[in-house]
Formats: sequence, C-alpha cells, structure tokens
Amino acid sequence: VTNRCTGFRFAGVSSGIKADGSLDLGLIYSDRPTTAAAVFTQNRAAAAPVLLSKAQLRKSGGKARALIVNSGNANAITGQQGKRDGRSMIAQTADQLGVPREEVLVSSTGVIGVPLPMTEIGGGIASACDGHTGGGFRRFARAILTTDKSAKIASRRVAVGGKRVTLLGCTKGAGMIAPNMATTLTFVVTDARLGSRALDQSLREAVAPTFNAITVDGDTSTNDMVLLMANGGAGGSAVRAPDARRFTKALTGLLDELARKLMRDGEGVHHVVEVLVRGASSDAAAQRVAQTVANSPLVKTAIAGCDPNWGRILAAAGRAGVRMKVESTSLRIGSVPVLTRGEPSSVEGWDTRASRIMARREYPLVLDLGLGKGVGRYLACDLSHDYVSINADYRT
Amino acid sequence: VTNRCTGFRFAGVSSGIKADGSLDLGLIYSDRPTTAAAVFTQNRAAAAPVLLSKAQLRKSGGKARALIVNSGNANAITGQQGKRDGRSMIAQTADQLGVPREEVLVSSTGVIGVPLPMTEIGGGIASACDGHTGGGFRRFARAILTTDKSAKIASRRVAVGGKRVTLLGCTKGAGMIAPNMATTLTFVVTDARLGSRALDQSLREAVAPTFNAITVDGDTSTNDMVLLMANGGAGGSAVRAPDARRFTKALTGLLDELARKLMRDGEGVHHVVEVLVRGASSDAAAQRVAQTVANSPLVKTAIAGCDPNWGRILAAAGRAGVRMKVESTSLRIGSVPVLTRGEPSSVEGWDTRASRIMARREYPLVLDLGLGKGVGRYLACDLSHDYVSINADYRT
Repeated sequence: VTNRCTGFRFAGVSSGIKADGSLDLGLIYSDRPTTAAAVFTQNRAAAAPVLLSKAQLRKSGGKARALIVNSGNANAITGQQGKRDGRSMIAQTADQLGVPREEVLVSSTGVIGVPLPMTEIGGGIASACDGHTGGGFRRFARAILTTDKSAKIASRRVAVGGKRVTLLGCTKGAGMIAPNMATTLTFVVTDARLGSRALDQSLREAVAPTFNAITVDGDTSTNDMVLLMANGGAGGSAVRAPDARRFTKALTGLLDELARKLMRDGEGVHHVVEVLVRGASSDAAAQRVAQTVANSPLVKTAIAGCDPNWGRILAAAGRAGVRMKVESTSLRIGSVPVLTRGEPSSVEGWDTRASRIMARREYPLVLDLGLGKGVGRYLACDLSHDYVSINADYRT
Repeated sequence: VTNRCTGFRFAGVSSGIKADGSLDLGLIYSDRPTTAAAVFTQNRAAAAPVLLSKAQLRKSGGKARALIVNSGNANAITGQQGKRDGRSMIAQTADQLGVPREEVLVSSTGVIGVPLPMTEIGGGIASACDGHTGGGFRRFARAILTTDKSAKIASRRVAVGGKRVTLLGCTKGAGMIAPNMATTLTFVVTDARLGSRALDQSLREAVAPTFNAITVDGDTSTNDMVLLMANGGAGGSAVRAPDARRFTKALTGLLDELARKLMRDGEGVHHVVEVLVRGASSDAAAQRVAQTVANSPLVKTAIAGCDPNWGRILAAAGRAGVRMKVESTSLRIGSVPVLTRGEPSSVEGWDTRASRIMARREYPLVLDLGLGKGVGRYLACDLSHDYVSINADYRT
C-alpha cells in the first residue's frame, strides 16, 4: 500500500473540536491544476458543507485544488450560521494556500445541530495549510474519523494514458453502524489525468456497485460524500477509452476494498453478509430485492443470532415491490440450500449446517427468483445489541 | 366492553400445535348469512391461507359464514403441501358446520416453513365446531396469540340503519415487535347489515389511518390479515349514507384502539410515539415522511434512549423522497420546540425538557415542513435491546 500520490499533499491536525485532542481537521492540497468529481448524499436535509461543495464544483466547472474537512461536528441543520461558517472555512483555506476560492471544497462529519467552533477551526486551518506534506496521508485519514476503530486506506496502481498511475483513497464510517448517522466520507486522489466529465462518469460507475450497495440501517446521512481528485501528476496524456475502462475498474476495486473495510470496522458488526440476488426480471429489480433484504431488521437480527430463519429473507424479498413467485424461488445460505423452487429443504441437519455458516465473519446469501436474468448485490451486516447501545445514547 | 354480537358464535381450543398446550385454534361462526371484507398482506411471499382466503372471497362474492384460524404455525412457504393443508382446514370446517365450502375463510400465524400438524388441527377443528358459543369471544381472542402478552379486544356500539349495532374485534401482533414477522391478525364482527361492497369500502377507509399507519420495524408479514364480517343480526335495514359514515367512524375508532393496544403490548416496546407531519406538499407526501421517520432505526434507538437527537428525525425526513426545505422546517418533541424554520432552539435547557418528555410511555413528535397543507400520521415505537434479544434467536 502506497501512501503517496504525485503532486498531492496532505495534513491532519488537532484543532480542538474534539474534547480529547485527537486529530479533527484534514487537508488535501494539489500543487497543480486538478479536476474533481463528487457524489453527495441525496438527503433533502443535506448539511451546509454538502450544499457548498456542490455549488463550488458547479462554479469551478469540475476543478478543485484543495479539500478542507473537519470531524467532530457535522455543521448540519445549523441554520444560516452554518452556511456562513462553511464559507469561511473555504475562504480561509483558499487564501492561505493562495488558490482560487471556487477551487476549495469543504466537508464535515460529527454531531448535528450544533454550530462549529470557528475559532478552533481557524487555528486548525492555519496549521494544516502551513504543515501539509506529500507523506501526510495517514494523518489525514485519521483526522476524518469519528468513532471508527481505525483509519481505512486503500491504493491501486494501474497503467493508463501511457503511464503507471496511482489511486489513493481513504474512508470513514462513524464506527460504521451509525453513531449519529453513519456518515460516510470517502476521498480518493489520483495522479492520472482525466477531464472533469470523464472523471465524473468513472466515479459514478464505480460508486454504484460499491458505496451505493452497502447498508447498515438504511439511514442516509446529511453529510455523505465521495470525492475523487485527479491532477495528472504522473504525466502522460488524458485517459481515454479503452484506458478509461481500466481506470474505472481500478477505481471500483479500490472503492470495494474501502467499502468492505468500512463494514468490517463497524462497532457492533460481527458479520458482513453479501446478499446476492439472481433470476430477477431485471437488474434493477434484483438490486431492489437485495437492498430490501439487506435492510430488514428481522433479517439483520437473524444474522446477529446466527439463526437460519430463512422465512424472514423470503418475507423481506416479498415486500420489495418487484415481481416474485415463491414457487420459483430458491435460497442458499452459503453452500446450504434451504429452499428449492418454493419447497423447504427436507435434508436432515440443514439447519445445523446453515447455522455453522452464519457463525462466520463473512458469508453469502444467494437468492434466486427463477424468473429472469436480473442480478443484484448488497453488503449487509447484523443488527446487534451493540448497535442499540451505541445508538440509544450517542448524543447525550 | 361487550363480549357478544348477535348471531356470532366463537370457539378457542387447544389442538396441540403449541407444545405448552395453550389455546391455538379459533373459530368464528355466524348462524345466518354474512357478508365479509378483508385486507391482506401485500407481501409477494404471502402464505397459503392468505392466498386461499382471497380466492374464497372472490368465489363467494364477499360472503363468509365462518373463519378458522390457528396460531403456532404460519403455514407460510410450505410449498404445495401448504395449499393442500389450508384447503383441508376449510373443507373440514365447512363440512362440520354444514355451510358451503366457499364461505369459510382460513388464517394462520406462527413459525414459517414448517408443515402444519394436520392430525392435531383436525381434532381441534372438530372440537371447535362442536363447542362454539355466543360468549366465547375471549377464548377466541386468546387462541390467535403467539408471543403477545395478553388478548387485545375492543368493541363499539353505534346507531345505524335504525338500530343500535355492535362492533366487536380483537387483534394479535406476535408480541408486537416481530418475533418471526410481527404478523398482525385482526378480526371484527358486527351485527349491522351491510352489502359486501359497502363493507369493503368501510374497511379500507378504516384500515388506512390505523393498521396501515403503525410500524414496528417496516417488515410486513407473509400472513397479515384484517377481516370484517357483518351478519345483520341486529335487525334493521342495510346501512346506507349518511349512516355508512357513522359506521366507518365507529370502525375506525375500534381499529385505532386495537392498533394502539397492539403497539403498547409489544415485548421490548417502552415508548409508543405518534409521528405527526404537517405542512407537506400533499397528504401522501406527509404520510411518506411520517412512515420514513417511524421506520428509521436511528430515530427508534434515540426513542429507546430518550435522547432528543432531533438531527436524526430531520435526516430521516430528508431521505423520504418528497419535497422538503430545512429552512422552512420546524420540529417539536411533545410541547418543546427543538427546531423553528430551520434554526435549532437556543433556549436554555430545551434538551433536558425534551428528554423528560421522551421518558414518557406515549408522546407526539410534530414535524411541520412549512410547505403546504398535507398532513400525515404514523405510530412508531422504540428499537430496544429487548427487540434484538427477542429476534436474534426466535426460531432456534
């Protein structure tokens, strides 16, 4: 795993937002012109930094020289003050780095509804803009965490545009299972050269089967953001087809690795389950079924209890709102068939074998609707006592 | 609370489905011609008794002289055998009561994927058809329970069609919070006279704001059913407008009482919260927001922890997929304003006051989107450690 990406510099500092003095402010800075693409939360209660960064990308036409991000406070539902504070973070960062204001993005994660401590943040921005280094990625990756157990980093090397380029990324998931929103922030930089439209398309294709196909509790955050910055630092020409496919594939692999790390790192997560749906009338229908099964509290508590209560999986699939016939439906837990074209297993000991598979850290559920060729996939996890403990009193 | 309804007879017997010998088979029998209307689960994995009862009502043109119901086994996802068993329950009941086969409905609740013990059930049907009485409603109401703490009964008296008529109903919710599906079975009988079309319309109107607006975990069962039977035993003419409105109002009140009893009776339910949404662009939009908030695991764990973490409520509303602007949104927890047109409360001690309200058994959340005149309502409950304990190992 590399820690560097030509032309990118990183900082992670402790500004004093977090009471325990741990890292809480991060900076990504590119020393040369950089294209940027991002995917944001669809939540209508999106936080100020999300609205501001969206507007920035529109204004700059998909360019960004820097990202400033804080953890410990989401700057969400903070009224007019929140917007002023976000704008001020952008302005301070741009002015101190000497880059155009519209080329700075901002991001936040943490508690909702509390104004940012701007004095502390101002000090943090000054020291981040002063002390960024080419090797500071690990500190940056730690500065974006909230209750995650550890930093989650991944990298890829791939040959495109006649050069070997690097993709370097990190993610945070608030301990995954949602202390205050499961905000997912993911930042990826690359020294490949891509136009902003190509970058945007590549990011959307890579996010769909990865970060858009994981769920802890179906709640989406006010602050979610996946950002990709490309500065061409590796040299070479702009990435075009068929290299673009190779780049997207590398990016998808990187995001998949980060998404799985996110799930595994969850407080209270004991099992990461791949819900594979086949035989649906379309891919969209299959994905809908996979998502509904992955989000079902009854399925998730069964996963927690290693209980092969497959009726709940069928019942969740049955309310996904897509075509389904029990008579043509089959289900496997790992390698154990529990339902075959609508008939429950009559094999002696199937339940003991299925329970044994469900005791594993990771295993697949394979649901075949037997209707068509549509396939879909979702990563799910258990709903455990720890989830309730963590979330019943996070704020207070 | 009355226990009788002219012309209806009830039985509740122990047939041996449940290992502990408690009541597990119930019968409703009308000694005269009876119209019937029902609302069934929308789940595509609907159980054999649901499919059979739907077909029966179609065949009979909305008539039903009897209902046979068992608890302890859902006869769901039991393949071809399940359909044969359901048909057999209908045939045995019809033959022993001497009523047309198409006028018998069947219902089941309990474990999924296990064939019915038909020998025991046959004995139970014989003794129920032999021993029904006009005063047996309480035993019937107990016979449909699974892990509910107690029977849930309600009644209404209302003057329609020139007579004072009775509505008598009971419900079960499998301990409410979903040991194996939260199957909701609700049976209401009335000695009013209504045509099958008027009965159907009245039932649909009454179910929408009551049993279709409660949620424990968003999972819908393979076996849910609300049945209404009317036999005209009170005498008088068929109910027509404006009496029909009064009848529907009484029915809605009865179903609301049963729905609330269902929520309160839940194992692991400590708080029943009324989510009231106003100011949406339409009633449908308001209902969608209320439902999304009521189903959010993060909102439900905050309810469990009496934690006024209102950001989660806003975030849930924000992902409901309807129009919303944070700047125009206000939220009250009980009587405490926590957000007013997008600005968080700055009143000293709001959080202590809000926590105190959230410690109550029942309280409202009032969310005003400030956009239009749409209103909606949902009953929600907490997601507690008990929920996880009950559901992590129900089957085994």
